[in-house]
Amino acid sequence: MGELDFIKWIRRSTRCKKPVLVGIGDDCAVIDASRNQLQVITTDTILDGTHFDRLKCTARQIGRKSINCSISDIAAMGCKPAYALVSINFPTKIGGRFCKELFRGIKEVSDRYNTQIIGGDVVSGNCPLSINVTIIGTSPEPLKPIKRSGARPGDVIMVTGTLGGSILRKHLDFEPRLLEGMTLNKDFCIHSMIDISDGLLIDLNHILEESDIGAVIDEKQIPISLDAYKFSKLTGKAPIFHALSDGEDYELLFTVSKNEAKNILKSNPFSIPLTPIGYIQRRKGLFIKDITGKERPIKPAGYEHQI
Amino acid sequence: MGELDFIKWIRRSTRCKKPVLVGIGDDCAVIDASRNQLQVITTDTILDGTHFDRLKCTARQIGRKSINCSISDIAAMGCKPAYALVSINFPTKIGGRFCKELFRGIKEVSDRYNTQIIGGDVVSGNCPLSINVTIIGTSPEPLKPIKRSGARPGDVIMVTGTLGGSILRKHLDFEPRLLEGMTLNKDFCIHSMIDISDGLLIDLNHILEESDIGAVIDEKQIPISLDAYKFSKLTGKAPIFHALSDGEDYELLFTVSKNEAKNILKSNPFSIPLTPIGYIQRRKGLFIKDITGKERPIKPAGYEHQI
Repeated sequence: MGELDFIKWIRRSTRCKKPVLVGIGDDCAVIDASRNQLQVITTDTILDGTHFDRLKCTARQIGRKSINCSISDIAAMGCKPAYALVSINFPTKIGGRFCKELFRGIKEVSDRYNTQIIGGDVVSGNCPLSINVTIIGTSPEPLKPIKRSGARPGDVIMVTGTLGGSILRKHLDFEPRLLEGMTLNKDFCIHSMIDISDGLLIDLNHILEESDIGAVIDEKQIPISLDAYKFSKLTGKAPIFHALSDGEDYELLFTVSKNEAKNILKSNPFSIPLTPIGYIQRRKGLFIKDITGKERPIKPAGYEHQI
Repeated sequence: MGELDFIKWIRRSTRCKKPVLVGIGDDCAVIDASRNQLQVITTDTILDGTHFDRLKCTARQIGRKSINCSISDIAAMGCKPAYALVSINFPTKIGGRFCKELFRGIKEVSDRYNTQIIGGDVVSGNCPLSINVTIIGTSPEPLKPIKRSGARPGDVIMVTGTLGGSILRKHLDFEPRLLEGMTLNKDFCIHSMIDISDGLLIDLNHILEESDIGAVIDEKQIPISLDAYKFSKLTGKAPIFHALSDGEDYELLFTVSKNEAKNILKSNPFSIPLTPIGYIQRRKGLFIKDITGKERPIKPAGYEHQI
């Protein structure tokens, strides 16, 4: 059974009601905590052997990644992180020095983003290292969290940064696009947004499914990272394949009206690239326009856990 | 390094500030979410091989336990659970049927306590099953969450239910004392409260440390469970040893003024036993009055993970 099928099954059996405005199925849940004070909440686990290799990185890198993944979900709603809970499964006898370094990595990130660590849990046993971070964020009034479900026909699809090959380096040392997400929410009218954790195609498809709509992306516009080129030499696959399908880029993918896309590109608000890569259309499904200009359907593929 | 030492180290490096009223070091964190609307937040992980044995229980039991542990923390603050996030580490190929049964166990409990499941994460890999549940609760005005730190000299120490031998049965199939916690908070003046997860002595010691105070407990008053008697036949240790030291009873341990203790016992509000087991005193440390009436210091011992 695929992870996404299981989550779909869970979702069908957990319909949310007030004051929960968004439940399972977006980057964060949204709660109307009290008198229109909205909270956004997300949780993410990273596991040794699946999301990192403990022997190939430092404890501090693992700590940073564990919280950055969750902060990226808050960024994907255009919100601001406020509180964090950190739960760690330690392999027995991993040693106090490692534990402290791991926590220092987490603290480094929580301090940078003014996020208070308010709780957590520590267990140990015969298990690989895994870290779960829950973050509660706020949506500073009058802003609203940006959902996956707001894409409209004619919207331009845009992406921050460059994509692909994150396994070489970036998946451990990325900067969540928090400033970018908040700025987009504050200064522009963003219809839908998600962070790219499973891969561009899969995550774009999440937007399409939630918005009940289709899209065409333009192969020659996809911003391919240098690491995607490097990685393609190791895998024998084309760089564009990695840009479309690799997970853990933690860039923001969003849709805006054609006019707002122009405004954003004109104001050029960020120090990182911002690229229009296609558009939303009424016709369902995901299509790609290849370099010859021919349009063909493309299957949303990327990283999915099997359970 | 002991788990508790690591948590103490973390706590020293994460001093909380407004609007966080209680950070690491209580059953739940407390946030003043907005205009005096208090939220209580807790997170708990259970791990195969440490908190349950997957081959000796059903998926549904594991699911129920995972959320009941967190609800017990909310009960220990005298509060009401509202929202849950569920993160699961699945061993690869555990199978969809098991996953669904596990989730049904979680859902059964969340439904019973009117707690909406609003999010979570699912990962899989070469790991034992583990489940982390974060719960956000509320403190219905004008009530305040009951902390560990409010015990006062002269307070009577009381406990719900009976203690010890939970490993035989109860640790998988307990009922968190949610109704009891909320009733105590609503109808009586409770100075301090905790749930017994690590063992009576260790958890009482948490109250003493947080309240900067000491206590004497009376051996002959400790409500020993039938399972503690049964289990003592297997271990060769005295039943009282199990009642004092076994973890995972998930009963409530609290302190109240002598007068309020009388009120509670007189009104007899619960269907489960409620027992005064000792008193708080200025003199630091934890003491036990044995059956001959002699008082001696006792080391808070129970279950502690080593990392």
